[in-house]
Amino acid sequence: MSIRTQMFYAREGIVTPEIQRVAEKEGFDTEFVRREVAEGTLIIPANVNHLSRGLNAMGIGRNIHCKVNVNFGTSPVTKDLQHELRKLEVSLKFGADTVMDLSTGGNLTKIRKEVIDHSPIPVGTVPIYEMIERVSDLSYLTESDILDVIEQQAKQGVDYMTIHAGLLKEFIPLAQKRITKIVSRGGGLIAHWITETGKQNPFYTSFDKICEIFKKYDVSFSLGDGLRPGCINDASDEAQLAELRVLGELTLRAWKNDVQVMIEGPGHIPVQQIAYNMKIEERLCHGAPFYVLGPLVTDIAAGYDHTASAIGAAIAGTFGAAMLCYITPKEHLGLPDEEDVKQGLIAYKIAAHAADVARELPNSKEWDNEMSRARFAFEWNKQYSLSIDPETAQNYHDITLPGEYFESAEFCSMCGPKFCPMAAMKKIDGMTLNKKQNLKEATIH
Amino acid sequence: MSIRTQMFYAREGIVTPEIQRVAEKEGFDTEFVRREVAEGTLIIPANVNHLSRGLNAMGIGRNIHCKVNVNFGTSPVTKDLQHELRKLEVSLKFGADTVMDLSTGGNLTKIRKEVIDHSPIPVGTVPIYEMIERVSDLSYLTESDILDVIEQQAKQGVDYMTIHAGLLKEFIPLAQKRITKIVSRGGGLIAHWITETGKQNPFYTSFDKICEIFKKYDVSFSLGDGLRPGCINDASDEAQLAELRVLGELTLRAWKNDVQVMIEGPGHIPVQQIAYNMKIEERLCHGAPFYVLGPLVTDIAAGYDHTASAIGAAIAGTFGAAMLCYITPKEHLGLPDEEDVKQGLIAYKIAAHAADVARELPNSKEWDNEMSRARFAFEWNKQYSLSIDPETAQNYHDITLPGEYFESAEFCSMCGPKFCPMAAMKKIDGMTLNKKQNLKEATIH
Repeated sequence: MSIRTQMFYAREGIVTPEIQRVAEKEGFDTEFVRREVAEGTLIIPANVNHLSRGLNAMGIGRNIHCKVNVNFGTSPVTKDLQHELRKLEVSLKFGADTVMDLSTGGNLTKIRKEVIDHSPIPVGTVPIYEMIERVSDLSYLTESDILDVIEQQAKQGVDYMTIHAGLLKEFIPLAQKRITKIVSRGGGLIAHWITETGKQNPFYTSFDKICEIFKKYDVSFSLGDGLRPGCINDASDEAQLAELRVLGELTLRAWKNDVQVMIEGPGHIPVQQIAYNMKIEERLCHGAPFYVLGPLVTDIAAGYDHTASAIGAAIAGTFGAAMLCYITPKEHLGLPDEEDVKQGLIAYKIAAHAADVARELPNSKEWDNEMSRARFAFEWNKQYSLSIDPETAQNYHDITLPGEYFESAEFCSMCGPKFCPMAAMKKIDGMTLNKKQNLKEATIH
Repeated sequence: MSIRTQMFYAREGIVTPEIQRVAEKEGFDTEFVRREVAEGTLIIPANVNHLSRGLNAMGIGRNIHCKVNVNFGTSPVTKDLQHELRKLEVSLKFGADTVMDLSTGGNLTKIRKEVIDHSPIPVGTVPIYEMIERVSDLSYLTESDILDVIEQQAKQGVDYMTIHAGLLKEFIPLAQKRITKIVSRGGGLIAHWITETGKQNPFYTSFDKICEIFKKYDVSFSLGDGLRPGCINDASDEAQLAELRVLGELTLRAWKNDVQVMIEGPGHIPVQQIAYNMKIEERLCHGAPFYVLGPLVTDIAAGYDHTASAIGAAIAGTFGAAMLCYITPKEHLGLPDEEDVKQGLIAYKIAAHAADVARELPNSKEWDNEMSRARFAFEWNKQYSLSIDPETAQNYHDITLPGEYFESAEFCSMCGPKFCPMAAMKKIDGMTLNKKQNLKEATIH
């Protein structure tokens, strides 16, 4: 078996086509990207069996542009494949950087195959969802089931997998002190397995065997935070940090195998604790990219959790989070539909871009400035096309001022022609110019 | 003429009923609130002629809960009074702390009277909008027009007025260097007046006379930032800071008259500059409460500017902003309707609450914790009622799982019954309990 991960090549000093591609996209030179991949601070989740089927390589790292992941997938309650493929389409249309197929209902293998076939961006999964479909009772799950499912998904072309290997038996009592205990689906299943069997977390004990599979296909770890806080009260607590420390150890073990790693993070964190959470992850996990879910900065925003978490996501991105897992308006209430996917994704694209601007990354602020120049010039069509969702921007404008005439008008319905400050400033510029002109003429005569 | 502002009484050591009311609402003692009002770090915008007509006093200050303002008002393009009153209703329903009537179309005096009559929360205005209705050409506006309109609005019961007195003649060339120059409506009008007449800003030269009117009715200053940046490129620049310095001087002049002051702030600020902006205002304006518009953290989110600015607003609130002026999804595109008002306001209520939680203010995190306990208990109806918008929360839940049965189900459509981690943790708790029970029984036998 040959080792053929991006990390392996990068450490050998080889610039793969994928490293090249990421450097181009990010506006950095290839040597910088190669070094980052070699050091583990940047991953290129690119399963060789997805690369050969049209994956367009991208990078996730703490020193490059902040990325956004979209979760979708069937549930036992709603399980229509076409519906999920439409969510993938929406994800691609609005610029998702990766997607996770979190299906738990219907024919999981078939759904996954279709998603990978249709996705030019990396696809992640949480393989424990399929594992428990194989057994009549969760506690019957064995190491061989675990490795079988992982191998099968790796072979299918999954680019990264969430593996909750850091939730140790010893930490369950820590979680029981919390208001919402465990809120990670995978974490809950593993805690249940541990409690029923009395044994250690099987993903922890099988970790090196999982590495063996991952390096054969270049699957990246997304080390899952089964103990992520489920409310701001539980944030940054003993349970969360105990698990994070183990994820740091596992990072080193994966790296020993040349397997790429990112770390999953919370969840729910109040604003004043976000910077701390980004720093502690960097330190405990040796600089591995941090992939955070939100975080939500308050628990009271049900129905608007995409907004409440976009706040946390922008701050997390500013302080170094490499990828933001989106949250939809339906979070805590139900399974998202296509419109929810769109709303969640757009909120997160805004958050990620705000973080890129704050970190002064290449080709970030330029977009804003182009928009601002179009605004001052009253180039409405250019403003729409530069907007994060051109169709919506134009619709909102045209509700009150429809028609060709208003697409070049020097005002909008907010201020009207008499009150528009930018139009006023244009006149002032003109007046200043005229005065200069007069002065020049006066000098000549 | 007797001086009868809240600041006057507070400085005399008198606890007014309004100071008492604010202390109750905020969860602080009256002496703390009185001292804050006396020092100018907390204002109670309460025009005596609005107080007598049912104003419920509230406070805006850097050491109390973060507040949210809603702007509405007619424009020359859409000018229906009933429409604006419905926006007021929506504002009250979703918890706006103050409203500003920014009408520029229709019968302004009548609209303002109706808004004040229907509003138990403070009403602010930007009186220059009415002033320019009185003159055929902006440059004809005189000091007497200015004072007349201000006196008339003060008499009507307006609680605070935006006065752009800091935009000096000398600063206009600084604004001309910018991409979007001036984007404040009032600022644009004044810059135009200055350029046409060649004179100094009339609000600056008449400032003491305005103070005389304000103290008669206890109108608070909202010192306007006519030079606020209109895009992130222009943020924190020379023009903005030059004006802010003047607002600091004017604050001291107002305080000499026992007139309450808050300072208006931007606008558009990238994430990494927000904390700096909050600090520099505190220093230059002697601790007067900062009332910021957004700020937007990126310019590319047209159609979603309520989200892009809620990010900035939450950070601003965390670093000391006293009130957040909301931004709707229609910003930069058109006049907001009722649904836009709702969406903007809710995004800002989330931002303000997130800031309160971050600053660990009284009665803030408790709301989150109550929600989190309801989540773990699967008390769906309680979750809805604790949500920022109960109706939407319940609708989102009921789309996939309608009916009485699911309102007490221990799962939702996101995970379904088999995958719900909180349900799993309840079982684990049960198992632990059973083991303890067995142990106890074993000991007895």
